[in-house]
Amino acid sequence: MDARKLKQKPESGTVYLVGAGPGDPELLTVKAARLLRRASVILHDDLVPAEILALAGPQAEVSNVGKRCGAKGITQDEINARMIESARCGLDVVRLKSGDPGIFGRLAEEIDALEAAGVPFEVVPGITAGIGAAASLGVSLTDRRTSARVVVVTGYHARKNRPQEKPDWSTLAREDVTLVIYMPGHVFSALRDELLAAGLAPAIPALIVSNATTARQRHICTTLENLDRLPRMESPSILLIGRPLERALRAAGAANPSLALEEVDLILSSL
Amino acid sequence: MDARKLKQKPESGTVYLVGAGPGDPELLTVKAARLLRRASVILHDDLVPAEILALAGPQAEVSNVGKRCGAKGITQDEINARMIESARCGLDVVRLKSGDPGIFGRLAEEIDALEAAGVPFEVVPGITAGIGAAASLGVSLTDRRTSARVVVVTGYHARKNRPQEKPDWSTLAREDVTLVIYMPGHVFSALRDELLAAGLAPAIPALIVSNATTARQRHICTTLENLDRLPRMESPSILLIGRPLERALRAAGAANPSLALEEVDLILSSL
Repeated sequence: MDARKLKQKPESGTVYLVGAGPGDPELLTVKAARLLRRASVILHDDLVPAEILALAGPQAEVSNVGKRCGAKGITQDEINARMIESARCGLDVVRLKSGDPGIFGRLAEEIDALEAAGVPFEVVPGITAGIGAAASLGVSLTDRRTSARVVVVTGYHARKNRPQEKPDWSTLAREDVTLVIYMPGHVFSALRDELLAAGLAPAIPALIVSNATTARQRHICTTLENLDRLPRMESPSILLIGRPLERALRAAGAANPSLALEEVDLILSSL
Repeated sequence: MDARKLKQKPESGTVYLVGAGPGDPELLTVKAARLLRRASVILHDDLVPAEILALAGPQAEVSNVGKRCGAKGITQDEINARMIESARCGLDVVRLKSGDPGIFGRLAEEIDALEAAGVPFEVVPGITAGIGAAASLGVSLTDRRTSARVVVVTGYHARKNRPQEKPDWSTLAREDVTLVIYMPGHVFSALRDELLAAGLAPAIPALIVSNATTARQRHICTTLENLDRLPRMESPSILLIGRPLERALRAAGAANPSLALEEVDLILSSL
């Protein structure tokens, strides 16, 4: 870390690229909470909840640079420019990203820009959504009895207009893998068909969780063969598929007061 | 979470299965720090550093149930029994695991035991070592320009006496994957050969990090083709392989005061 500070001009602030975790303010790291309290400038994404932004100190200038709600039409170059400009004014900047910045967070592009500008920076990891979602439901992502590895992918490839980005499920999908699919979209019939064609058992548990670890969290447990029957869930959501999730499926079949009736029916039909 | 508490007998304590993060006490979650302060019983693994255990409240009975240093010969059944017994005495228990409990932490087995015993529990996620290691070196695990997915595996399969557990690298190793290998061992020549045989480019960056995020952290950057030349690193270590790590390789080539001379030579020879 010191090596990166060698380039620091005396007057420059530092940019902290910080993971805000999955949503629950208590799942911030102690370090992230400390940096939020003392930063002069906070540039955050859309998905960071208000309860976390409320931890900013009174001196902080807090801006939503999210591309959907905060600053429509803002480009990555403009976000980079704002970080660099503030640091060059001698201000410490927290660039707050939901989850962990290094997992599908465009961290690499922001680091490249900071490095090219000679601005000192530090990465502060966060609890990534897949890990937070599994913990909130009391399931493990690995289980040495059934699952030896975790594959973390994004689901945007599933869009019909991006066939070139379709992952090669036949090589990724194995019985001893837990799949963690970020941004899974809302239509899972193609994914279901491909995973079944790749040889996964129809009874493998699947779990979709929206707004993980927040008060608005909802989840549905089902099986791979019923994946196409899942109702539309609020974004952000995450899709988990794998043997270690069997516990959640059992628990949901037994009793799950958080589910609407048609969803209980969906679960029961999959047992 | 409430659903799991329905089984709670009035007198039972709760078992919190808590991730301690990769080592730096500031990378604990706010929730983990709060639970540590107030728990009556803390059962921790070998790898949890003293600085984190020092956050326990004065009322806490703190025991190392790690299988190497703490309680030689202790079995998983005995650890389960201690958690259950303490909770049945009405005590709140923190079962503290390094990293995230759901990533290679035997979480599933402990949950099964708690559930079978009717003891209420809650999982509190932690920063897993792979994510902490990448952040500490200022690299991203994904990069939409080069790496679309992350594969998290353990390396114990690499042991010669467990050939049946050898992963199928030919299907897992792809140019657009970042591999995160926990418990990678010390001998990487077979791994190198298999990954090259699977078609990965010899110049793909590789990074081994020991004691990530602690004061004793050391790391070495190299490339896949030089993986067999890595010196032995102190445990725990983690091995990262993938295109997004190129930044660390560039930075190490430029200047890395934390490396011994022969290691700098290793790095330079790989550039």
